[in-house]
Amino acid sequence: MNVEIVAVGNEVVGGYIVNTNASYLACEVRKLGMHTKWMSTVEDDPKSIEEALSQALKRAEVIIITGGLGPTPDDLTKEIVCKTLNMPLHVRQEEVEKIKRYFAKKGKVMPKNNEKQAAFPNEAIILPNDCGTAPGCIMESGERIVILLPGPPHELRTMFNQYVVTWLEKKSHLCYQNLDIKCFGIGEGECAERLEGLIGQNDQMSVATYINEEEVIIRITSWNKDKLVGKNEIEKVKKQVEACLGEFIIGYNDERLEENIVKKLLEKNYTVSTVESCTGGMIAATLVNCSGVSECFKEGVVTYSNEAKMAYVDVKADTLARVGAVSEETAREMAEGIRKRAHSDIGLSSTGIAGPGGGTPTKPVGLIYIGIATNEGTDVYRLQLNGTRQKNREQTVKHILFQLYKKLK
Amino acid sequence: MNVEIVAVGNEVVGGYIVNTNASYLACEVRKLGMHTKWMSTVEDDPKSIEEALSQALKRAEVIIITGGLGPTPDDLTKEIVCKTLNMPLHVRQEEVEKIKRYFAKKGKVMPKNNEKQAAFPNEAIILPNDCGTAPGCIMESGERIVILLPGPPHELRTMFNQYVVTWLEKKSHLCYQNLDIKCFGIGEGECAERLEGLIGQNDQMSVATYINEEEVIIRITSWNKDKLVGKNEIEKVKKQVEACLGEFIIGYNDERLEENIVKKLLEKNYTVSTVESCTGGMIAATLVNCSGVSECFKEGVVTYSNEAKMAYVDVKADTLARVGAVSEETAREMAEGIRKRAHSDIGLSSTGIAGPGGGTPTKPVGLIYIGIATNEGTDVYRLQLNGTRQKNREQTVKHILFQLYKKLK
Repeated sequence: MNVEIVAVGNEVVGGYIVNTNASYLACEVRKLGMHTKWMSTVEDDPKSIEEALSQALKRAEVIIITGGLGPTPDDLTKEIVCKTLNMPLHVRQEEVEKIKRYFAKKGKVMPKNNEKQAAFPNEAIILPNDCGTAPGCIMESGERIVILLPGPPHELRTMFNQYVVTWLEKKSHLCYQNLDIKCFGIGEGECAERLEGLIGQNDQMSVATYINEEEVIIRITSWNKDKLVGKNEIEKVKKQVEACLGEFIIGYNDERLEENIVKKLLEKNYTVSTVESCTGGMIAATLVNCSGVSECFKEGVVTYSNEAKMAYVDVKADTLARVGAVSEETAREMAEGIRKRAHSDIGLSSTGIAGPGGGTPTKPVGLIYIGIATNEGTDVYRLQLNGTRQKNREQTVKHILFQLYKKLK
Repeated sequence: MNVEIVAVGNEVVGGYIVNTNASYLACEVRKLGMHTKWMSTVEDDPKSIEEALSQALKRAEVIIITGGLGPTPDDLTKEIVCKTLNMPLHVRQEEVEKIKRYFAKKGKVMPKNNEKQAAFPNEAIILPNDCGTAPGCIMESGERIVILLPGPPHELRTMFNQYVVTWLEKKSHLCYQNLDIKCFGIGEGECAERLEGLIGQNDQMSVATYINEEEVIIRITSWNKDKLVGKNEIEKVKKQVEACLGEFIIGYNDERLEENIVKKLLEKNYTVSTVESCTGGMIAATLVNCSGVSECFKEGVVTYSNEAKMAYVDVKADTLARVGAVSEETAREMAEGIRKRAHSDIGLSSTGIAGPGGGTPTKPVGLIYIGIATNEGTDVYRLQLNGTRQKNREQTVKHILFQLYKKLK
């Protein structure tokens, strides 16, 4: 089935925001064996919306329209689409109640404006919005399927996953399956070399590499009428990839490295604590983003100043005076200090110069030390990063978690 | 002048890459007083390219087409566009030489394939590619301007900046200016109500609201021949918006809330410390992302367990036993505890149930208390959020920073 994606919104067509919804949806419908052939982006303007829809109806079987479902008078998508499809809108009282409850939960009263978000044609299947006030909908008009989704990406993604996928699955017949194998600590070029002979594509399978931030992703894709056959073929290639890249693998599909770490910690009954300087709490925050982490995360401190480093984790004044806060020794004392103080099995530390200021010839911006203390001793790793302040901090978190994961594996 | 942007490429329409070229170009032409009204993305397919161009020629004065200028047989943009415009292609020897030199610089010989990149109609203005092999071009056809640019973003951006901007500037006469006012703690519907009469558009100005995450953005836009007149008009509307929404305003244009907070803290010579439970270090990490924060950020602790809450910030065992960790009292004791311990002017705390597990009927998932302790006393705010774990934590950070900013203002 052919798909066309139409984005509605002055902020998108004006270039104020990048249309990530379109690429997201194109990827998702591909998994359902469908094929996006056209994307358009138009203004919040009745004539443009109508024109885009009319053209799409000529070209595609499935038309997904995003944005313009808000409560304000310039949110016009549903009104114009339903007019074009000749499906009159009626306010549905049960939807009004849902929106009222959404506001009530926040201790607020629904503004009158929001009532129009509860209006739908009789023929529409309403898609609940679990993250906002604008419900979406699916409408079938002759041979065509028209799907309206809200513009904010997290609302759109949640709605699509929760309510649209299962509905569309019934309309498609090819079984698309894929597996992403995520690697860290290795470049795309070296990955490709190690995987020589595996990378490529035929009618029913493909193996390709992509880069996402500093991760290299090996994507194995199968299209097959028989789900089980496809699954087995993916499994076979997966084992070959693991044989080539084992130590660099940090997870599969949507697995996050920190989730896999927390799983390992819980499995082994280990506890962890953190002391952070340049990352300022990001290591702790990343771990704490995993549900169930309370069983294994003991404490975290952010010791931005030298005083705090001494007071909280017993870094020696002498060390700071002799080699400075950004040094292997300080990282070591910090990791050991928090491990001891928190009575945890593992202590993690970071200290460095995230930038943009603060660099010197011997300690340039991007120089960062990370420490991991365990009952087997303490390892300190030296990083020399070259991104922005935020990127350097994110990279530091990635590196320390990667090293911790390697140890736990 | 109206602009339409057409992207050509299977990888874009297939969702494998996000079309950042379109938003980039829309922003750039806006600065020239031009107005993008439509964007399309199509496959590397002759029929689709021709259809997209034909429709664009009906709608816009300037059509920018990106991608499909490579050397391979499936790069068809130039061939199809020139056929549609009825402008035959001729290989230009001087362009062949340039491409040969590009390869020679890398110690390589130009493959025969690349010769087609040197073919242009006689009427075309050729745009050199300083970063790759594919030159672009500008063609005028009657009242229409058609511009072809390469797909790789850095090639496109360099070419646009170097060669297209000055050419287009001569074609435009309007001066575009805009101002974004960012608000938090208020919904888009209520914003619109408070701004009634202000929101709208005429030939020279528009005022509109957008949502970005949980922020509402009020965008004031002016198109005017006279730059100063436009600037004054924006300033006038800005004051009206401030009168309606003052307390909710967290910044202008690209300003981040945390940067404005750090600025205020430094101005007033205040220091701040944090103690976090459910946010697990995110409040500290967000503040620490501002360069120069070392002057005002003293310490942060992550006290996920009850033991840590007692040990680090003197939360009373009695309080935890009586009302639990997720309570107004605990948030208050935490904020006051860290303020005292760190000898800082301000103490910030968070405690709550981020989810997905851990909720009870009386303390449901999303119930979060945030505390702000100052020398004038301690305020605790109760939030009831309803996102994912990650969203709830991000929202909590946003809320506490918003309340802190209100106090600092």
